[in-house]
Amino acid sequence: MTSTLIDNIGLLVTNDPQVGTGTAERESAALVLDGGIIRWIGDSRDAPAADERVDAAGRCVIPGFVDSHSHLVFAGDRADEFEYRMAGRSYSAGGIRRTVAATREASSGALLANARRLVAEMRAQGTTTVEVKSGYGLTVSDEARSLEVAGQVTSETTFLGAHVVPPEFADDVAAYVDLVTGDMLTACAPFARWIDVFCEAGAFDVDQARAILVAGQSRGLGARMHAAQLGESAGVQLAVELDAASVDHCTFLSGADVDALGGSSTVATLLPGVEFSTRQPYPDARRLIAAGATVAIASDCNPGSSYTSSMPFCIAVAVRDLRMTPAEALWAATAGGAQALRRNDIGVIAVGKRADVVILDAPTYVHLAYRPGVPLIHRVFSHDAP
Amino acid sequence: MTSTLIDNIGLLVTNDPQVGTGTAERESAALVLDGGIIRWIGDSRDAPAADERVDAAGRCVIPGFVDSHSHLVFAGDRADEFEYRMAGRSYSAGGIRRTVAATREASSGALLANARRLVAEMRAQGTTTVEVKSGYGLTVSDEARSLEVAGQVTSETTFLGAHVVPPEFADDVAAYVDLVTGDMLTACAPFARWIDVFCEAGAFDVDQARAILVAGQSRGLGARMHAAQLGESAGVQLAVELDAASVDHCTFLSGADVDALGGSSTVATLLPGVEFSTRQPYPDARRLIAAGATVAIASDCNPGSSYTSSMPFCIAVAVRDLRMTPAEALWAATAGGAQALRRNDIGVIAVGKRADVVILDAPTYVHLAYRPGVPLIHRVFSHDAP
Repeated sequence: MTSTLIDNIGLLVTNDPQVGTGTAERESAALVLDGGIIRWIGDSRDAPAADERVDAAGRCVIPGFVDSHSHLVFAGDRADEFEYRMAGRSYSAGGIRRTVAATREASSGALLANARRLVAEMRAQGTTTVEVKSGYGLTVSDEARSLEVAGQVTSETTFLGAHVVPPEFADDVAAYVDLVTGDMLTACAPFARWIDVFCEAGAFDVDQARAILVAGQSRGLGARMHAAQLGESAGVQLAVELDAASVDHCTFLSGADVDALGGSSTVATLLPGVEFSTRQPYPDARRLIAAGATVAIASDCNPGSSYTSSMPFCIAVAVRDLRMTPAEALWAATAGGAQALRRNDIGVIAVGKRADVVILDAPTYVHLAYRPGVPLIHRVFSHDAP
Repeated sequence: MTSTLIDNIGLLVTNDPQVGTGTAERESAALVLDGGIIRWIGDSRDAPAADERVDAAGRCVIPGFVDSHSHLVFAGDRADEFEYRMAGRSYSAGGIRRTVAATREASSGALLANARRLVAEMRAQGTTTVEVKSGYGLTVSDEARSLEVAGQVTSETTFLGAHVVPPEFADDVAAYVDLVTGDMLTACAPFARWIDVFCEAGAFDVDQARAILVAGQSRGLGARMHAAQLGESAGVQLAVELDAASVDHCTFLSGADVDALGGSSTVATLLPGVEFSTRQPYPDARRLIAAGATVAIASDCNPGSSYTSSMPFCIAVAVRDLRMTPAEALWAATAGGAQALRRNDIGVIAVGKRADVVILDAPTYVHLAYRPGVPLIHRVFSHDAP
């Protein structure tokens, strides 16, 4: 094992509550990484020797991004549908079901190659942890193999058999919920850490969502939720009631929803790439923050509603259109994502934590919003590949 | 000289009116580049041999981006001011004058190193031609040295002594206009291809703008204009009257302005990075296109109002918020930019044109908007460095 010293860090974002609030920044700092773990943090002038030295030359260093919401196991491309949507036209053959059909037809090898391509793309943009959902199989075998593929690219795997109702169950949603909570869950639970459901008009109602999450929890899976993307949803308060780790989208919230999130340990995960790519109104991050809710930002990378893999892009939109400060947006994309995955070993730069560290090609993380679209990732260190 | 064959191009954007309208696309194409010039275009199966072969493997190939509006000769950084603006607060020490002070203090070597850094960043994002303005010197010697620096990174140099009125002339704008049209023009004209003026409340009025552009034209410089960024401006119709190559910003236009542009050879250059980074309303591209105006997109890369260097980012915003189609936005960022610089050797892929060609890491250019923020530049060929 080789130890690495990163010194001459102009600005270090620690997100460490023992250092300060929020991004808890230090200046003129240095780090030592060894064996995939952060071993030492201090002033640059006090830095110990290490096997390798990396001179940050005054750059800003941040925790690797934690992208807590993505759908990377799929086949096909929906650029044509995107083009129609941007022109204000509907695309009759569009929607999630199109990706379901392509995913069912694809080989597992093709699904894995596509997921690996996207994870590599994310890594190059500073993401060191990514959650990956199933949800384009929607049969027992296709969901299980989707999770097997997901497990080859991340440990944060989520069973989302309840993404939409597949066409063959269109006339009997109850039977599909029975399948999801029965044979499909049995087949998928060994490959999943989390269970998720899309609780929204056109997908699953609140009673179905409750049945699905409770069934997953009884198998030892943690609960997460998609809700309030297209309108208010009773799913938000259900997520809080069930102590879900996160409720994702949160675009349309009632006052009671905001209050419930503010008084809970359920993270509100905002997905600004979705609103950007569907031309929907943006969620109100300020209201959530004012209520004391924990806010995360994730990409929702998927071939339909948000095909970005770029956390820096999501931060830029969060600052412009969700009106988060650059520090709030960065925290949400790192420590917030970690909380949305109930992880305390990532999203923070502190001794003993994972060595998931990004050197930006900028003197401050403010540049992630000040310089939108510009590749600003200088170097990525990750626990998996130190 | 080495010839290069690029074959197995899935989708080739030519922008060549002899091939078709708009982006004038071809499928299954191949190109031969030699000596910085496009020598052959045809079906991939008919491709001739060349010294080097590049397999595009079904990717999309486009003309290199032509970024017809940037301000790369400057010193300093205004991330703090951006952060204040995003929080809805004013920054008393902010504005262009802050960059003027830093630029005057910087060495020419430092200015050149910064400009080279940004041009390299642009190149990596697919930009093969960039226009660079002076405008942060605002003295005879600082404007002249700014243009000398600009000339070391591009042949498209623009004298913008009339960017703002410098503090030392705040009480006598007429004297500054006399300087710009007199000694400053004399010193700068040998290093510039273009003359530009910011015709807007708070900068120069329409009579001053006319005097400045006419003076430049009398020295053989082509005219361009900044106008209508913050409100309607008589500069738009002045630009048309003087046959300026382009009028840039065009955020606030009267019906008469749109009609004038639609009946002219003056390009309307839209700068969506500015509206993104200042949270201003976006210009109405559809109205300009409907009136028959030629629309270009450029980055306006500068440390104040738009510090993006990414033409793909500008295209993504143009599609979402200016409501251009992906094809219109791509054309505007390539052929549109070329027209804004009155160039017919770039922005088009045709035999005899410059070998400025980009292979995207995508099957179609629609991905530039469908996948916002994702680095999708696979390889860049340019006339300057084949």
